[in-house]
Amino acid sequence: MSGIGYQDAVDAIVAAGRWLDGKGWAPATAGNYSMRLDDGAFALTVSGWHKGRLSPDGVMRVDADGLSLDGKKPSAETALHMQIYRLFPDVGAVLHSHSPISVGISRAVSADSYRLERHEMLKVLPGITTHETFVDVPIVDNAQDMSVIAARIEWLVESRELRAYLIRGHGLYGWGRDMAEAERVIEGVEWMFAAELAEKEFRR
Amino acid sequence: MSGIGYQDAVDAIVAAGRWLDGKGWAPATAGNYSMRLDDGAFALTVSGWHKGRLSPDGVMRVDADGLSLDGKKPSAETALHMQIYRLFPDVGAVLHSHSPISVGISRAVSADSYRLERHEMLKVLPGITTHETFVDVPIVDNAQDMSVIAARIEWLVESRELRAYLIRGHGLYGWGRDMAEAERVIEGVEWMFAAELAEKEFRR
Amino acid sequence: MSGIGYQDAVDAIVAAGRWLDGKGWAPATAGNYSMRLDDGAFALTVSGWHKGRLSPDGVMRVDADGLSLDGKKPSAETALHMQIYRLFPDVGAVLHSHSPISVGISRAVSADSYRLERHEMLKVLPGITTHETFVDVPIVDNAQDMSVIAARIEWLVESRELRAYLIRGHGLYGWGRDMAEAERVIEGVEWMFAAELAEKEFRR
Amino acid sequence: MSGIGYQDAVDAIVAAGRWLDGKGWAPATAGNYSMRLDDGAFALTVSGWHKGRLSPDGVMRVDADGLSLDGKKPSAETALHMQIYRLFPDVGAVLHSHSPISVGISRAVSADSYRLERHEMLKVLPGITTHETFVDVPIVDNAQDMSVIAARIEWLVESRELRAYLIRGHGLYGWGRDMAEAERVIEGVEWMFAAELAEKEFRR
Repeated sequence: MSGIGYQDAVDAIVAAGRWLDGKGWAPATAGNYSMRLDDGAFALTVSGWHKGRLSPDGVMRVDADGLSLDGKKPSAETALHMQIYRLFPDVGAVLHSHSPISVGISRAVSADSYRLERHEMLKVLPGITTHETFVDVPIVDNAQDMSVIAARIEWLVESRELRAYLIRGHGLYGWGRDMAEAERVIEGVEWMFAAELAEKEFRR
Repeated sequence: MSGIGYQDAVDAIVAAGRWLDGKGWAPATAGNYSMRLDDGAFALTVSGWHKGRLSPDGVMRVDADGLSLDGKKPSAETALHMQIYRLFPDVGAVLHSHSPISVGISRAVSADSYRLERHEMLKVLPGITTHETFVDVPIVDNAQDMSVIAARIEWLVESRELRAYLIRGHGLYGWGRDMAEAERVIEGVEWMFAAELAEKEFRR
Repeated sequence: MSGIGYQDAVDAIVAAGRWLDGKGWAPATAGNYSMRLDDGAFALTVSGWHKGRLSPDGVMRVDADGLSLDGKKPSAETALHMQIYRLFPDVGAVLHSHSPISVGISRAVSADSYRLERHEMLKVLPGITTHETFVDVPIVDNAQDMSVIAARIEWLVESRELRAYLIRGHGLYGWGRDMAEAERVIEGVEWMFAAELAEKEFRR
Repeated sequence: MSGIGYQDAVDAIVAAGRWLDGKGWAPATAGNYSMRLDDGAFALTVSGWHKGRLSPDGVMRVDADGLSLDGKKPSAETALHMQIYRLFPDVGAVLHSHSPISVGISRAVSADSYRLERHEMLKVLPGITTHETFVDVPIVDNAQDMSVIAARIEWLVESRELRAYLIRGHGLYGWGRDMAEAERVIEGVEWMFAAELAEKEFRR
């Protein structure tokens, strides 16, 4: 349960926002990103900013309950970030992306998870060393009450190893020990959904 | 019915053009963008410029009737911009984007609107606070006589809250209190159409 | 039959290559671009260069028969450029793009033309002022002997106004009075093919 | 069996990584790139780096058996690179890209190769001078044991001219006499798969 200094976290979050926006995964004010700090607090994006256009003012400090430590207003989804840090003490960064493809797929399927299977790209997920496996990415229904989504995640963690999850019609959460790992998880999972769509389009 | 200074409006319009062109939503000379000025006039793109390559010379000043105040030639669609400013006195910026996806969808459906429903992204539209709702984006038939399109919009405003509309086989209009909000509306709606297409492709 | 100076033509061609490469329409060494010069000669890309990485050395000078005037080796498709300049004396620039979408469509259809109809974007083509029209973009079969393609074009010009044409499984030719107009034609036609594909995908 | 100096190889590999990442073909830590050096050794990307964010530290030196010459850890797929250099003494650079489209297609088809046929783009492949031909791109099943993949490639080389191959659900290998040629092969093949998908989508 280490962490980094606030200024380094701000730089990493601003850079992550520009990177995700460049991919088209951070439209409008969608998305919120966070990092665990070395003093036990957390750096988090402020509500309402375009994530591709963040300045340091668009990042704030919250405590482990998601309460503002500097008077700025945190994102409505702060509780989901804090839950991940609580469930996974070695997680240092959480990202939340919005690609048309994975959101479109989450709406197209009615199941409560999507199986990514036999992809070499699965190996970018921590703990996976072969393509001869699968990951069931949970798809939880969207809700405006974060405690409803959080309860679903809490229940899921009991039954499987969780590395990322989709909120139906909303977007993807992914995380890692540091920002680089969180970015790899997001990029790898979004890439696999894009490959799944191409496969489906070609197969028909 | 506030507004901003002309130079600030020029800067915002030039930046919006580069941003939309970067997304592929401002091909060739398509698109026209405007802002309400603090002196009651309006800044508007000049006809015939590539919107990703605007210089300050590519922006002009018109009055509330869309008549040129500086001798430059306004876009043929100026009347649609002026209608929006008249209908919505708190609107400060109007954008008009052209993505292959939303235009393709507008041609694929014959209805006079397209329902965007249960998208978290709906919340980027002003006044919407939940995904548990829908927005019927009007699709009006294209016409070269702007008064024909304007009449359809005028009629629509009577019956529903209007935040953006599609012209069939043509492109998307969106607006906001300021340029940032107009950009969010355009980006959010274009993103939802892209997600709708991905959903449809996957579902088949 | 005016034209521009050689250095200006080199700059315009280098910039066009970077722009087309940025859109993914100039892969590998595909594509060749040219401009009419003010001395009656033509500037043309040298064979074998990546068009997104052109330096001034990647541009050469040829005469109206496509023969090298400076010892560099012209593209194999030079004859198609020279034909366009001969057929259309007011043309100042010719571009040849390669998008996966328009090439994919040219392979999917067996007809000798593709109708673009009721697109507002048709208005970016010179001489078109309304969407209530259509353009039949010729699709000529590919050949390694340029005189075979040229003969098909020569025959087509007899029967219709020609603004751009597709070579099946190969790419798109477009032209204009100057480079800006040629770019608009290419961008507009490629955009319409992308919209046609989105429409078809959604319609199913 | 020439080659270039180490610093030039490092520069070329770092640039190739940025270029492939810009196209979305180098997600997360996927991909590994190499060049033949003038001293008989090879420059190769270090395991675990994001290929779009390589610094010179992300490149290392290995011998012809793929063993580290500088203490850094080579990619697990080094053996596949070394095999290509052994099989083709005039090859100077090897790239390994990951596009959602070609990987999606490799999963959609069950055959052990994919025929690219009558594409003008085939001419970017060394030795091909006409579109009136075809290339059967091998699709070998993925394996974590590189010797299994290598054995399949070894067997294939007996029976056909090999310019690139796909590993199913994994990615594309391509190579050339120098980095520019390897990039052309990768870009041309990935482009043809994208055109094949567009063709299939439109044809339905």
